[in-house]
Amino acid sequence: MNISNPILQALNQRRSIRKFTDEPVSREDLTAILEAGRWAPSGLNNQPWRFLAVHDSDPRAEALAGCTKYGHIIRAARELICIFLEKDKIYNAMKDHQAVGGCIQNMMLAAHSLGIGTVWIGEIVNHGEEVLEVLGLDNDKYELQAVIAAGHPDQQGSSTRKELSELMLEEY
Amino acid sequence: MNISNPILQALNQRRSIRKFTDEPVSREDLTAILEAGRWAPSGLNNQPWRFLAVHDSDPRAEALAGCTKYGHIIRAARELICIFLEKDKIYNAMKDHQAVGGCIQNMMLAAHSLGIGTVWIGEIVNHGEEVLEVLGLDNDKYELQAVIAAGHPDQQGSSTRKELSELMLEEY
Repeated sequence: MNISNPILQALNQRRSIRKFTDEPVSREDLTAILEAGRWAPSGLNNQPWRFLAVHDSDPRAEALAGCTKYGHIIRAARELICIFLEKDKIYNAMKDHQAVGGCIQNMMLAAHSLGIGTVWIGEIVNHGEEVLEVLGLDNDKYELQAVIAAGHPDQQGSSTRKELSELMLEEY
Repeated sequence: MNISNPILQALNQRRSIRKFTDEPVSREDLTAILEAGRWAPSGLNNQPWRFLAVHDSDPRAEALAGCTKYGHIIRAARELICIFLEKDKIYNAMKDHQAVGGCIQNMMLAAHSLGIGTVWIGEIVNHGEEVLEVLGLDNDKYELQAVIAAGHPDQQGSSTRKELSELMLEEY
Protein backbone atom coordinates (compact mmCIF):
# COMPACT_ATOMS: atom_id res chain seq x y z
CA MET A 1 0.00 0.00 0.00
CA ASN A 2 1.08 3.52 -0.79
CA ILE A 3 1.45 4.67 2.79
CA SER A 4 1.40 8.35 1.83
CA ASN A 5 -2.12 8.12 0.36
CA PRO A 6 -4.48 9.06 3.21
CA ILE A 7 -7.55 7.69 1.44
CA LEU A 8 -6.04 4.25 0.89
CA GLN A 9 -4.91 4.36 4.50
CA ALA A 10 -8.44 5.07 5.71
CA LEU A 11 -9.94 2.37 3.49
CA ASN A 12 -7.52 -0.23 4.76
CA GLN A 13 -7.19 0.82 8.38
CA ARG A 14 -10.73 1.73 9.48
CA ARG A 15 -11.99 -0.81 12.03
CA SER A 16 -15.21 -1.25 13.94
CA ILE A 17 -15.15 0.52 17.30
CA ARG A 18 -17.52 -0.64 20.04
CA LYS A 19 -16.20 1.30 23.06
CA PHE A 20 -16.45 5.07 23.25
CA THR A 21 -15.35 7.89 25.56
CA ASP A 22 -17.80 10.34 27.13
CA GLU A 23 -16.78 13.07 24.71
CA PRO A 24 -19.74 14.09 22.57
CA VAL A 25 -19.65 14.09 18.80
CA SER A 26 -19.79 17.75 17.77
CA ARG A 27 -22.58 18.93 15.56
CA GLU A 28 -19.99 19.90 12.97
CA ASP A 29 -18.58 16.37 12.87
CA LEU A 30 -22.04 14.81 12.77
CA THR A 31 -22.92 17.03 9.82
CA ALA A 32 -19.73 16.03 7.99
CA ILE A 33 -20.60 12.36 8.52
CA LEU A 34 -24.16 12.79 7.23
CA GLU A 35 -22.89 14.83 4.26
CA ALA A 36 -20.57 11.99 3.27
CA GLY A 37 -23.57 9.66 3.25
CA ARG A 38 -25.50 12.10 1.11
CA TRP A 39 -22.81 11.97 -1.59
CA ALA A 40 -22.84 8.18 -2.01
CA PRO A 41 -23.71 6.91 -5.48
CA SER A 42 -27.04 5.18 -6.17
CA GLY A 43 -28.67 3.55 -9.16
CA LEU A 44 -30.40 6.16 -11.34
CA ASN A 45 -29.17 8.60 -8.66
CA ASN A 46 -32.36 7.78 -6.74
CA GLN A 47 -30.79 8.48 -3.31
CA PRO A 48 -33.20 6.19 -1.47
CA TRP A 49 -31.58 6.68 1.95
CA ARG A 50 -33.05 8.63 4.83
CA PHE A 51 -31.31 9.42 8.12
CA LEU A 52 -32.27 10.04 11.72
CA ALA A 53 -29.70 10.90 14.38
CA VAL A 54 -30.41 9.99 18.00
CA HIS A 55 -28.13 11.60 20.60
CA ASP A 56 -27.33 9.67 23.78
CA SER A 57 -29.36 12.21 25.80
CA ASP A 58 -32.50 11.26 23.86
CA PRO A 59 -34.71 8.81 25.83
CA ARG A 60 -35.20 6.89 22.57
CA ALA A 61 -31.55 5.80 22.72
CA GLU A 62 -32.36 3.48 25.62
CA ALA A 63 -35.44 2.24 23.81
CA LEU A 64 -33.27 1.43 20.78
CA ALA A 65 -30.87 -0.46 23.04
CA GLY A 66 -33.80 -2.72 23.88
CA CYS A 67 -34.25 -3.56 20.19
CA THR A 68 -30.99 -5.46 19.73
CA LYS A 69 -28.81 -7.94 21.50
CA TYR A 70 -26.06 -5.33 21.03
CA GLY A 71 -27.81 -2.97 23.44
CA HIS A 72 -24.55 -2.50 25.35
CA ILE A 73 -22.97 -0.95 22.24
CA ILE A 74 -25.98 1.31 21.71
CA ARG A 75 -25.67 2.42 25.34
CA ALA A 76 -21.93 3.02 24.98
CA ALA A 77 -22.35 5.24 21.89
CA ARG A 78 -22.71 9.03 21.87
CA GLU A 79 -24.63 9.15 18.58
CA LEU A 80 -26.84 6.67 16.79
CA ILE A 81 -27.30 7.29 13.10
CA CYS A 82 -30.33 5.32 11.94
CA ILE A 83 -30.45 4.66 8.21
CA PHE A 84 -33.65 3.85 6.35
CA LEU A 85 -34.73 3.10 2.83
CA GLU A 86 -37.70 5.14 1.71
CA LYS A 87 -39.86 2.38 0.27
CA ASP A 88 -41.40 4.59 -2.44
CA LYS A 89 -37.94 5.20 -3.88
CA ILE A 90 -37.01 1.54 -4.32
CA TYR A 91 -36.42 0.71 -7.99
CA ASN A 92 -34.56 -2.59 -7.49
CA ALA A 93 -34.24 -4.04 -4.01
CA MET A 94 -30.77 -5.51 -4.49
CA LYS A 95 -29.35 -2.37 -6.06
CA ASP A 96 -30.97 -0.09 -3.49
CA HIS A 97 -29.57 -2.18 -0.65
CA GLN A 98 -26.13 -2.02 -2.27
CA ALA A 99 -26.45 1.76 -2.58
CA VAL A 100 -27.36 2.06 1.09
CA GLY A 101 -24.31 -0.06 1.91
CA GLY A 102 -22.11 2.42 0.06
CA CYS A 103 -23.81 5.27 1.89
CA ILE A 104 -23.18 3.65 5.29
CA GLN A 105 -19.56 2.97 4.38
CA ASN A 106 -19.14 6.61 3.31
CA MET A 107 -20.39 7.73 6.71
CA MET A 108 -18.10 5.37 8.61
CA LEU A 109 -15.10 6.52 6.55
CA ALA A 110 -15.97 10.17 7.17
CA ALA A 111 -16.20 9.47 10.90
CA HIS A 112 -12.85 7.67 10.84
CA SER A 113 -11.24 10.65 9.12
CA LEU A 114 -12.48 12.86 11.98
CA GLY A 115 -11.15 10.55 14.70
CA ILE A 116 -14.61 9.19 15.47
CA GLY A 117 -15.14 5.48 15.79
CA THR A 118 -18.20 3.66 14.49
CA VAL A 119 -19.70 0.24 14.27
CA TRP A 120 -22.33 -0.87 11.78
CA ILE A 121 -25.11 -2.58 13.71
CA GLY A 122 -27.00 -4.88 11.37
CA GLU A 123 -28.57 -7.17 13.94
CA ILE A 124 -31.06 -4.50 14.96
CA VAL A 125 -32.63 -4.79 11.50
CA ASN A 126 -34.04 -8.12 12.68
CA HIS A 127 -36.20 -5.96 14.95
CA GLY A 128 -36.86 -3.25 12.39
CA GLU A 129 -40.56 -2.82 13.07
CA GLU A 130 -39.90 -2.27 16.77
CA VAL A 131 -37.26 0.35 15.91
CA LEU A 132 -39.67 2.21 13.64
CA GLU A 133 -42.23 2.20 16.42
CA VAL A 134 -39.71 3.54 18.96
CA LEU A 135 -38.82 6.34 16.56
CA GLY A 136 -42.40 7.12 15.63
CA LEU A 137 -41.90 6.26 11.97
CA ASP A 138 -44.34 4.63 9.57
CA ASN A 139 -43.58 0.99 8.78
CA ASP A 140 -45.30 1.30 5.43
CA LYS A 141 -43.01 4.11 4.40
CA TYR A 142 -39.55 3.19 5.71
CA GLU A 143 -37.39 0.08 5.94
CA LEU A 144 -34.67 0.08 8.62
CA GLN A 145 -31.28 -0.58 6.99
CA ALA A 146 -28.82 -0.29 9.87
CA VAL A 147 -27.82 1.77 12.87
CA ILE A 148 -24.34 3.27 13.07
CA ALA A 149 -23.16 3.66 16.66
CA ALA A 150 -20.60 6.44 16.91
CA GLY A 151 -18.36 8.18 19.40
CA HIS A 152 -14.76 8.98 20.20
CA PRO A 153 -12.90 5.64 20.35
CA ASP A 154 -12.03 4.10 23.67
CA GLN A 155 -10.34 1.09 22.09
CA GLN A 156 -8.25 0.15 19.12
CA GLY A 157 -10.19 -1.87 16.65
CA SER A 158 -8.82 -5.07 15.21
CA SER A 159 -10.02 -7.40 12.53
CA THR A 160 -8.80 -9.63 9.76
CA ARG A 161 -9.68 -10.28 6.14
CA LYS A 162 -9.18 -13.09 3.66
CA GLU A 163 -6.14 -12.72 1.42
CA LEU A 164 -6.82 -11.09 -1.93
CA SER A 165 -5.86 -14.31 -3.70
CA GLU A 166 -8.82 -16.03 -1.99
CA LEU A 167 -11.21 -13.42 -3.35
CA MET A 168 -10.01 -13.39 -6.96
CA LEU A 169 -11.84 -15.82 -9.22
CA GLU A 170 -8.91 -15.63 -11.67
CA GLU A 171 -5.36 -14.36 -11.73
CA TYR A 172 -5.27 -10.72 -12.77
CA MET B 1 -16.73 20.83 4.75
CA ASN B 2 -13.26 20.78 6.25
CA ILE B 3 -11.39 21.34 2.99
CA SER B 4 -8.09 20.17 4.45
CA ASN B 5 -9.43 16.67 5.15
CA PRO B 6 -8.55 14.59 2.08
CA ILE B 7 -10.93 11.79 3.01
CA LEU B 8 -13.97 14.06 3.31
CA GLN B 9 -12.89 15.65 0.04
CA ALA B 10 -12.82 12.28 -1.70
CA LEU B 11 -16.17 11.23 -0.25
CA ASN B 12 -17.83 14.44 -1.39
CA GLN B 13 -16.06 15.00 -4.70
CA ARG B 14 -15.82 11.57 -6.33
CA ARG B 15 -18.05 11.43 -9.39
CA SER B 16 -18.86 8.75 -11.93
CA ILE B 17 -16.50 8.83 -14.93
CA ARG B 18 -17.62 7.30 -18.22
CA LYS B 19 -14.89 8.48 -20.60
CA PHE B 20 -11.34 7.27 -20.27
CA THR B 21 -7.94 7.90 -21.88
CA ASP B 22 -5.89 5.14 -23.51
CA GLU B 23 -3.49 5.01 -20.54
CA PRO B 24 -3.67 1.60 -18.91
CA VAL B 25 -4.39 1.11 -15.22
CA SER B 26 -1.14 -0.14 -13.71
CA ARG B 27 -1.11 -3.45 -11.93
CA GLU B 28 -0.05 -1.61 -8.77
CA ASP B 29 -3.09 0.66 -8.93
CA LEU B 30 -5.42 -2.22 -9.75
CA THR B 31 -4.07 -4.10 -6.73
CA ALA B 32 -4.64 -1.07 -4.47
CA ILE B 33 -8.23 -0.84 -5.70
CA LEU B 34 -8.92 -4.53 -5.07
CA GLU B 35 -7.25 -4.31 -1.66
CA ALA B 36 -9.60 -1.50 -0.66
CA GLY B 37 -12.54 -3.72 -1.59
CA ARG B 38 -11.09 -6.53 0.49
CA TRP B 39 -11.10 -4.33 3.61
CA ALA B 40 -14.79 -3.41 3.45
CA PRO B 41 -16.88 -4.43 6.46
CA SER B 42 -19.45 -7.23 6.24
CA GLY B 43 -21.97 -8.79 8.56
CA LEU B 44 -20.33 -11.45 10.74
CA ASN B 45 -17.20 -10.54 8.73
CA ASN B 46 -18.36 -13.08 6.13
CA GLN B 47 -16.66 -11.27 3.24
CA PRO B 48 -19.06 -12.66 0.65
CA TRP B 49 -17.55 -10.73 -2.28
CA ARG B 50 -15.49 -12.22 -5.09
CA PHE B 51 -13.68 -10.30 -7.83
CA LEU B 52 -12.61 -10.86 -11.40
CA ALA B 53 -10.67 -8.24 -13.36
CA VAL B 54 -10.99 -8.14 -17.15
CA HIS B 55 -8.42 -5.99 -19.00
CA ASP B 56 -9.43 -4.23 -22.20
CA SER B 57 -7.12 -6.54 -24.17
CA ASP B 58 -9.14 -9.58 -23.06
CA PRO B 59 -11.63 -10.73 -25.74
CA ARG B 60 -14.20 -11.16 -22.98
CA ALA B 61 -14.33 -7.37 -22.57
CA GLU B 62 -16.16 -7.09 -25.90
CA ALA B 63 -18.45 -9.96 -24.92
CA LEU B 64 -19.29 -8.13 -21.68
CA ALA B 65 -20.07 -4.99 -23.68
CA GLY B 66 -22.73 -7.06 -25.40
CA CYS B 67 -24.39 -7.83 -22.04
CA THR B 68 -25.50 -4.27 -21.23
CA LYS B 69 -26.98 -1.26 -22.89
CA TYR B 70 -23.96 0.59 -21.53
CA GLY B 71 -21.65 -1.35 -23.85
CA HIS B 72 -20.05 1.90 -25.00
CA ILE B 73 -18.82 2.53 -21.45
CA ILE B 74 -17.48 -1.02 -21.17
CA ARG B 75 -15.63 -0.50 -24.48
CA ALA B 76 -14.24 2.85 -23.30
CA ALA B 77 -12.83 1.41 -20.06
CA ARG B 78 -9.32 0.04 -19.55
CA GLU B 79 -10.30 -2.30 -16.71
CA LEU B 80 -13.54 -4.02 -15.78
CA ILE B 81 -13.77 -5.16 -12.20
CA CYS B 82 -16.58 -7.69 -11.96
CA ILE B 83 -17.97 -8.17 -8.45
CA PHE B 84 -19.88 -11.28 -7.39
CA LEU B 85 -21.53 -12.63 -4.31
CA GLU B 86 -20.51 -16.19 -3.49
CA LYS B 87 -23.92 -17.71 -2.92
CA ASP B 88 -22.69 -20.16 -0.28
CA LYS B 89 -21.57 -17.25 1.90
CA ILE B 90 -24.93 -15.45 1.96
CA TYR B 91 -26.31 -15.21 5.51
CA ASN B 92 -28.92 -12.49 4.90
CA ALA B 93 -29.53 -11.28 1.35
CA MET B 94 -30.19 -7.65 2.28
CA LYS B 95 -27.17 -7.37 4.55
CA ASP B 96 -24.89 -9.15 2.09
CA HIS B 97 -25.99 -6.83 -0.71
CA GLN B 98 -25.33 -3.83 1.55
CA ALA B 99 -21.87 -5.20 2.36
CA VAL B 100 -21.09 -5.61 -1.33
CA GLY B 101 -22.22 -2.02 -1.87
CA GLY B 102 -19.70 -0.85 0.72
CA CYS B 103 -17.04 -2.98 -0.95
CA ILE B 104 -17.77 -1.44 -4.37
CA GLN B 105 -17.72 2.05 -2.89
CA ASN B 106 -14.37 1.32 -1.22
CA MET B 107 -12.93 0.33 -4.60
CA MET B 108 -14.25 3.42 -6.34
CA LEU B 109 -12.86 5.65 -3.59
CA ALA B 110 -9.46 3.94 -3.81
CA ALA B 111 -9.47 4.46 -7.59
CA HIS B 112 -10.39 8.13 -7.15
CA SER B 113 -7.51 8.59 -4.72
CA LEU B 114 -5.14 7.27 -7.41
CA GLY B 115 -6.50 9.55 -10.13
CA ILE B 116 -8.46 6.74 -11.75
CA GLY B 117 -12.06 7.27 -12.73
CA THR B 118 -14.78 4.67 -12.33
CA VAL B 119 -18.44 4.13 -12.90
CA TRP B 120 -20.61 1.55 -11.17
CA ILE B 121 -22.53 -0.34 -13.84
CA GLY B 122 -25.62 -1.89 -12.27
CA GLU B 123 -27.68 -2.34 -15.42
CA ILE B 124 -25.52 -5.29 -16.48
CA VAL B 125 -26.85 -7.23 -13.48
CA ASN B 126 -30.14 -7.49 -15.38
CA HIS B 127 -28.16 -9.81 -17.70
CA GLY B 128 -26.21 -11.54 -14.94
CA GLU B 129 -26.56 -15.09 -16.24
CA GLU B 130 -25.16 -14.05 -19.61
CA VAL B 131 -22.21 -12.36 -17.87
CA LEU B 132 -21.44 -15.49 -15.87
CA GLU B 133 -21.53 -17.52 -19.07
CA VAL B 134 -19.16 -15.09 -20.84
CA LEU B 135 -16.74 -15.35 -17.91
CA GLY B 136 -17.03 -19.12 -17.59
CA LEU B 137 -18.47 -18.96 -14.07
CA ASP B 138 -21.04 -21.19 -12.46
CA ASN B 139 -24.49 -19.60 -12.10
CA ASP B 140 -25.24 -21.85 -9.14
CA LYS B 141 -22.21 -20.56 -7.29
CA TYR B 142 -22.02 -16.83 -8.00
CA GLU B 143 -24.43 -13.92 -8.30
CA LEU B 144 -23.27 -10.92 -10.34
CA GLN B 145 -23.40 -7.76 -8.22
CA ALA B 146 -21.98 -5.06 -10.49
CA VAL B 147 -19.19 -4.21 -12.89
CA ILE B 148 -16.89 -1.28 -12.18
CA ALA B 149 -15.56 0.27 -15.38
CA ALA B 150 -12.23 1.99 -14.72
CA GLY B 151 -9.55 4.03 -16.43
CA HIS B 152 -7.80 7.38 -16.39
CA PRO B 153 -10.50 10.06 -16.68
CA ASP B 154 -11.10 11.80 -19.97
CA GLN B 155 -13.87 13.98 -18.55
CA GLN B 156 -14.83 15.79 -15.40
CA GLY B 157 -17.71 14.10 -13.69
CA SER B 158 -20.70 16.05 -12.51
CA SER B 159 -23.73 15.13 -10.48
CA THR B 160 -26.10 16.50 -7.90
CA ARG B 161 -27.64 15.30 -4.65
CA LYS B 162 -30.66 16.16 -2.56
CA GLU B 163 -30.01 18.62 0.24
CA LEU B 164 -29.27 17.05 3.62
CA SER B 165 -32.47 18.56 5.03
CA GLU B 166 -34.47 16.46 2.54
CA LEU B 167 -32.82 13.27 3.81
CA MET B 168 -33.21 13.87 7.53
CA LEU B 169 -36.39 12.44 9.00
CA GLU B 170 -35.99 14.80 11.97
CA GLU B 171 -33.94 17.84 12.90
CA TYR B 172 -30.67 16.79 14.49
